[in-house]
Amino acid sequence: MQPINIGICGLGTVGYGSYGVLKSNQEEISRRLGKLLCVSHIATLSLKDGQDIGDVKITDDAMVVARDPEVNILLELIGGTEFAYQLVLEAIAHGKHVVTANKALIATYGNEIFKAARDNNVIVAYEAAVAGGIPIIKVVREGLAANKIDWLAGIINGTGNYILTEMQSRSRPFVDVLKEAQDLGYAEADPTYDVEGIDAAHKLTILSALAFGTPLQLEKVYTEGISQITPEDLEYADELGYRIKHLGISSLSEQGIDLRVHPTLIAKQELIAKVDGVMNAVLVHGDAVGSTLYYGAGAGAEPTASAVVADVIDIVRRMGCIDNSKEGQEQIPALAFQHEALRDTRILPIEEIVCAYYLRISVQDKVGVIADITEILGDNGISIDAMIQKDPDKSGKDHEAIPVIIMTHEIQEAVMNKAITELEGLDAVTAGIIRIRVAELG
Amino acid sequence: MQPINIGICGLGTVGYGSYGVLKSNQEEISRRLGKLLCVSHIATLSLKDGQDIGDVKITDDAMVVARDPEVNILLELIGGTEFAYQLVLEAIAHGKHVVTANKALIATYGNEIFKAARDNNVIVAYEAAVAGGIPIIKVVREGLAANKIDWLAGIINGTGNYILTEMQSRSRPFVDVLKEAQDLGYAEADPTYDVEGIDAAHKLTILSALAFGTPLQLEKVYTEGISQITPEDLEYADELGYRIKHLGISSLSEQGIDLRVHPTLIAKQELIAKVDGVMNAVLVHGDAVGSTLYYGAGAGAEPTASAVVADVIDIVRRMGCIDNSKEGQEQIPALAFQHEALRDTRILPIEEIVCAYYLRISVQDKVGVIADITEILGDNGISIDAMIQKDPDKSGKDHEAIPVIIMTHEIQEAVMNKAITELEGLDAVTAGIIRIRVAELG
Repeated sequence: MQPINIGICGLGTVGYGSYGVLKSNQEEISRRLGKLLCVSHIATLSLKDGQDIGDVKITDDAMVVARDPEVNILLELIGGTEFAYQLVLEAIAHGKHVVTANKALIATYGNEIFKAARDNNVIVAYEAAVAGGIPIIKVVREGLAANKIDWLAGIINGTGNYILTEMQSRSRPFVDVLKEAQDLGYAEADPTYDVEGIDAAHKLTILSALAFGTPLQLEKVYTEGISQITPEDLEYADELGYRIKHLGISSLSEQGIDLRVHPTLIAKQELIAKVDGVMNAVLVHGDAVGSTLYYGAGAGAEPTASAVVADVIDIVRRMGCIDNSKEGQEQIPALAFQHEALRDTRILPIEEIVCAYYLRISVQDKVGVIADITEILGDNGISIDAMIQKDPDKSGKDHEAIPVIIMTHEIQEAVMNKAITELEGLDAVTAGIIRIRVAELG
Repeated sequence: MQPINIGICGLGTVGYGSYGVLKSNQEEISRRLGKLLCVSHIATLSLKDGQDIGDVKITDDAMVVARDPEVNILLELIGGTEFAYQLVLEAIAHGKHVVTANKALIATYGNEIFKAARDNNVIVAYEAAVAGGIPIIKVVREGLAANKIDWLAGIINGTGNYILTEMQSRSRPFVDVLKEAQDLGYAEADPTYDVEGIDAAHKLTILSALAFGTPLQLEKVYTEGISQITPEDLEYADELGYRIKHLGISSLSEQGIDLRVHPTLIAKQELIAKVDGVMNAVLVHGDAVGSTLYYGAGAGAEPTASAVVADVIDIVRRMGCIDNSKEGQEQIPALAFQHEALRDTRILPIEEIVCAYYLRISVQDKVGVIADITEILGDNGISIDAMIQKDPDKSGKDHEAIPVIIMTHEIQEAVMNKAITELEGLDAVTAGIIRIRVAELG
């Protein structure tokens, strides 16, 4: 049996994890594939303590792997965008199929990479780039291919979900929990990508393009992080029947595509509201299938390797019969839709989205404040779904500020912005208003 | 663009649903596929009220569709096993690819059907046969192909889950809820297939073969229904921190494969314990990916059609390059593993399985009863995890019988059988002991 040669570029967590899965499950994979997968070349700056790659050829220059005539499939597991982009283009130019776990790379340069892959009759696969081990790319691109997809919503950043879960269950502030997550290795030393929603925006860019048949448009994702969420918000939301999750949401309407990452109130009884800790989950709603949910580990060496190696297996299954030049079509298009069928559907600016809102308003405990607030909301056509007025803080300091929590019905964001500006102009309102969007996923 | 011709055999719920999805989503599907799907021939005994198939050719003999030289892909949506088997073989013999939603057919005759398909270089796809619109076959066969799958467990019968959910939430007995489910159309007039676990056994047979690389072995599934479950059991389980779900479970160990369908206690905090109503969910645990869960509608015209049409799309994507004679291998094997790599792994008889148990023992309210019970359990090496002893029934009738609920630690079923026989021999035990198995899915 002639083996298929794999080149691994980058031997960090995911790279070494993929090496491990290819090795330990080699026999099981051959039972499925009828072919032998063999790691033949690895690029890494240096082996870390405990890393053992047997007698596999090694180099510190990833480009050498991209040009190695014996390598059939290159795994780009280096991360970052600029060098990774050059590496992938080089591998494609040398006729190699590519597997990557790099969401930033695909979200940023995917359009160019997939064109190069088409032009060279090779496959670039990226299952591991979204939601780790959950085969969500395959599900959206193939499993739900009979549907018009209406919307999707996902908890697609495990670090953020871990932090919110801990804040909720232990009533701890964001900064404390972030520090713990860093100590446990769940959050990076620089947590910006995770907690400010950038990582989630990369993933949502990919999911949205796959679902709706558009090019990748990272720059159009509205992105808001979780660093402003307080344990009090989680508590008030709980009281009102909601959980707060950091969601990526994309939905298609006649007006265009919603494309946004932000903290979101979700009714407690929704299954996705019960996804806690570092786990990921993606809800996908299709016109035929209705709501479906996919849950699993969104990160980690072995779950991510599961997706990387599944892509390798898929490529081997397809590599005998790829000829995009024939009719100019891809058998399974990289972005789910034939490239000539992609549409430049308008992405809605955040001001145009319509949703319900949670507002937390700090006010002085004076007669008439609530009347002033409800008048402003009413004048703007915003109707109130529920309200909680808390007793004044008994602790002594700041004894006049009380929080008023309002849940509104659906309204356009632009209108809400205007109302918030007016509310913040009231003398009795003592601080900036906290606004969290609500998602109705039923 | 030369269209791909689809022949639909059977125009019931799923057949007409598939016709509808192919028609209403034709343009969206073409954007993905780069080809046009066209229903060219339909077999049905008669059109029902409201069914409109335009000018599609119609016959009352499905075999005519199987032999129609213009049909590329035949959808077997008739149901039943014997005629469906003959129809599928006829279609295969005429070089047609086949899509079926028929779990009984695949579980019963899948081994023979897949052999015929290999011999004739055609594909038989059956995504819709398990868990309706959830693309679970694709997930297990392709998405998780890098893993050694350790176990899977699923709520794979919506009717049963609906009945248990209603019994739980409204404290209603089985027979009442079944009657309601029949009135609502969630349960058949003859509910045996659903409530006695036969339907779930068909689906579990398929999932287990896919996960562990064995032939289909329907006759070896241990099957127990939900008709013996009472609202009291649901209530006691709740008190102990559990839900009762009708699960199909298959797991691989050194001893062999567990393959069983029965009511099961699951810890409340597990996500799958929160899957209510007619919804389905399948948990799959792989050695690399860990636990993953797939949730969605397990039945209904459109969700099932979503899976049928996804199979059609998959077939069209692969039909240009199928040649199993080349190296005798399948590109994507029907049962996930190359047929020559299938293993006849031993299926454990139910007596050999090991799990924890819930026991409900009706006893006379006498001194020493509990001591007698715990002695028998202790003598059999069965240790107790938790116990509830209820007060005597105050209603007057049967005032001496009280229920004792015991949760045990893990023990072999054969040992539990012996202990139950001994317990039932005690004078103070007034009725047969209710035994429900516990699944630890963590």
